[in-house]
Amino acid sequence: MEAIDLNTLHINPNQGLQKQIHHQLVEWICSGRLPVGTKLPSSRQLAHDLQVSRNTISLVFEQLKAEGFIETYQGKGVYIATELPIDNLLISTPIKNKPAHLPPISQFAQSLQQNRLTTQRQTLPFTLGIPDLQQFPTRIWNQIQRCHQDRSCLMGYDDGQGYQPLREAIADYLKISRGVRCHAEQVIITHGAQQGISLCSLALLDEDDHVLLENPCYLGAKKAFKTRHIAFTPIPLVDQCIDINYLFNKLLITAKKPRLLYTTPTHQYPLGGMLSAGQRLKLLDWAYTEKIWIIEDDYDSEFHFTHKPIAALQGMTSPHSVIYLGSFSKTLFPSLRLGYLVVPEELVEIFVQTKNFMTGESPLLNQAVVADFIAEGHFIRHLRKMRKLYKEKWIHLESLIKEKLQGLASPIAESAGMHLAIEIADCDDVLLQKELLKQGFGCAALSQYYIGEVEKTGLVLGFANTTTEQRIACIEYIRMLLITSH
Amino acid sequence: MEAIDLNTLHINPNQGLQKQIHHQLVEWICSGRLPVGTKLPSSRQLAHDLQVSRNTISLVFEQLKAEGFIETYQGKGVYIATELPIDNLLISTPIKNKPAHLPPISQFAQSLQQNRLTTQRQTLPFTLGIPDLQQFPTRIWNQIQRCHQDRSCLMGYDDGQGYQPLREAIADYLKISRGVRCHAEQVIITHGAQQGISLCSLALLDEDDHVLLENPCYLGAKKAFKTRHIAFTPIPLVDQCIDINYLFNKLLITAKKPRLLYTTPTHQYPLGGMLSAGQRLKLLDWAYTEKIWIIEDDYDSEFHFTHKPIAALQGMTSPHSVIYLGSFSKTLFPSLRLGYLVVPEELVEIFVQTKNFMTGESPLLNQAVVADFIAEGHFIRHLRKMRKLYKEKWIHLESLIKEKLQGLASPIAESAGMHLAIEIADCDDVLLQKELLKQGFGCAALSQYYIGEVEKTGLVLGFANTTTEQRIACIEYIRMLLITSH
Repeated sequence: MEAIDLNTLHINPNQGLQKQIHHQLVEWICSGRLPVGTKLPSSRQLAHDLQVSRNTISLVFEQLKAEGFIETYQGKGVYIATELPIDNLLISTPIKNKPAHLPPISQFAQSLQQNRLTTQRQTLPFTLGIPDLQQFPTRIWNQIQRCHQDRSCLMGYDDGQGYQPLREAIADYLKISRGVRCHAEQVIITHGAQQGISLCSLALLDEDDHVLLENPCYLGAKKAFKTRHIAFTPIPLVDQCIDINYLFNKLLITAKKPRLLYTTPTHQYPLGGMLSAGQRLKLLDWAYTEKIWIIEDDYDSEFHFTHKPIAALQGMTSPHSVIYLGSFSKTLFPSLRLGYLVVPEELVEIFVQTKNFMTGESPLLNQAVVADFIAEGHFIRHLRKMRKLYKEKWIHLESLIKEKLQGLASPIAESAGMHLAIEIADCDDVLLQKELLKQGFGCAALSQYYIGEVEKTGLVLGFANTTTEQRIACIEYIRMLLITSH
Repeated sequence: MEAIDLNTLHINPNQGLQKQIHHQLVEWICSGRLPVGTKLPSSRQLAHDLQVSRNTISLVFEQLKAEGFIETYQGKGVYIATELPIDNLLISTPIKNKPAHLPPISQFAQSLQQNRLTTQRQTLPFTLGIPDLQQFPTRIWNQIQRCHQDRSCLMGYDDGQGYQPLREAIADYLKISRGVRCHAEQVIITHGAQQGISLCSLALLDEDDHVLLENPCYLGAKKAFKTRHIAFTPIPLVDQCIDINYLFNKLLITAKKPRLLYTTPTHQYPLGGMLSAGQRLKLLDWAYTEKIWIIEDDYDSEFHFTHKPIAALQGMTSPHSVIYLGSFSKTLFPSLRLGYLVVPEELVEIFVQTKNFMTGESPLLNQAVVADFIAEGHFIRHLRKMRKLYKEKWIHLESLIKEKLQGLASPIAESAGMHLAIEIADCDDVLLQKELLKQGFGCAALSQYYIGEVEKTGLVLGFANTTTEQRIACIEYIRMLLITSH
């Protein structure tokens, strides 16, 4: 029997020869290019043909034999093993051209496909939720990181709930700054606000439950419930805040009792209203009596410009049914992927186990750096600096809107935080968003935040990540678009 | 009406006065200690009583008024607002002493409570899955980190699927080292192997499905299915590898068709067998024909000592139904929390969306550092160094076992990777584990990895994270325990 010629093996002499030859031979065997029973050249011959050392080929043959791909018969030579069941596994064409013949996916995944929401966020000027990254105190951050990065105790496994010193630093910060009543044992470190909401969804809600959402609403919250087939009832706003009376009166008619309310009381997303203390207490009383969970998303509470924000719902009364949600994505930077939940003591273990199912712990070095950044006072200093800076940007943006967009658009609420919603009556704001994206501006269409009927159209401008020139250019461009469309 | 005396407010003069006073007043109002309608002292009087500036008190009153807690009547003074509905919200005792009156949790969470598994892992000598962290090339790692840490483009949002250069580096590495057939678009960055398994569980399985697990089996895999109420059938081993014939013959009797098989073909967890190439091809053929997903957990494939591991299942045939699972927890370090999945092209979008629901993207800086660490060749060099080191440790450990535990215990398979399973006939290995833990050794009881009937008892020794002295001390201690128990 004549040995097959293996001259056509592609060898890159600058890469590991043994691996390359082995890999190609396996591929050729599995693809049927080298049929079962084929005689291979001797190792001496093949080494000569491929201009590699004989030792290399011997090692390849040894491995192929150990794997069961080839058989050697004393005095007869080397053959492709005959017992390989590869008849049904021939690859004649690349995978792309093969008809899909895969097992089914889960209903959860099917529903994700149906309810697809854009999740990829670009980091553009005016994109919502992006802080001014140029102002981040990188030097201090890196100094702290250097102190930790040689500590091998930060390289192993830790607690799924989160790094203890970070949980303590967060508890202390929240107590003083936001009036949250908690101790470190109630704090659960998350991979950001989105995981916080998904954790609540998995740990607190069943698929046939229903939740209450403000209308308009943060899209990430809607998504975390919708992907689990959880129904939701939109709650209208009054003065850019959730309508408490609607909750108390209109909801009585609803057939099914809600299990959870997701709310942004300190900076309604995206309109910007702040719920008064009186209404907060009413809301807490109602939720506790009715046994309804509240997710209090306290986003942007750090960046109120005119007066201090009202203390968090969570700390106003006790006991309560509030899960407090926060994130470092806006106060530090998004790619850090760290956030936190403060949960009632009874829920701690359940949330930790749910988190362990979803991801396990967060990267430890990042947690240690944030812990020191807070404990050493840099966090408060950074927030103070950014509050001042964002206030200047906000004043500038608002003055530009009043000056350039008079009669065309108007700010919706006295603002705070990192974005400003403007109303533009009867416009195709999705088209506006697209046109602005072409210019590199990441403004968002207001209409997309509504559930059901769109009450207001306009734009939401994330101004934190903008320069003076960008603000001028963007408002000028909006003006141009609005004038030419009329 | 006489004003109430607020002398008893606790003020720490070294902390922010305004915040402290505001916070205590809100608490006293909410707790009923300051009933509605109570007259407060004038700002001048209170400033005098508390020995703080009048301006501080004015600011506190201003905030309380804005929040609706107090009312001022011209010429009459300052009063606790009458319209606060706080009657039902009195806090007389701390939350701990209150009876729980919380809304219900989800069925998912209830099942977590029932099926609780220890998840907290200590980083001890002999703890499974902990690499030798002292040998990590920290200097090189930190150098790469320094190159990236000032790049503000790594601070914003990125792609949920993972950082493109990292996905490319992983695809290149897996192609060459493990024979995985993939391109960067099929790679999904995870928060570690555990998230990889949970992602498969959510994206591929419904609650009434059932899966096949090797017996004994990696506990994290069992947990990811059990918490979702997914049933499982244990598949016995032959020669420390999954029994392919059992799959083909005995399974036919099962009433319900399985949807997924979780397997560790290159280093059976925890016994250490390596499935032959011929059996791999049979397994692939069976799964593809029967439309059953395979999760190929390729853990520890990097650390085979005697000859190269057989190429991954994933790359042997195409098309196939394999999800390839890997992690950097053992090849780099656990607290990095980075792993990867390689999925068929048809599943990429579904997995990315499922991951977005669970966590969103992984921290970007960490991803960028790993990408460079691989691309610059440090990863391969580090693996080579560790393979040599772990081999030395393994040889030492095995010789100790043969010498000291003769007749008492014996290694189960010719080993590889970072742990060695030893059989100790008819012993209470859970008790052994406890006794060893008291000495600071994190060895694991073999029996706990079995589903149902325990076939073998013994210990699994994670030797990667041990010194020569620790290995001697631990084996000596096991000897002592075994001898005294007889």
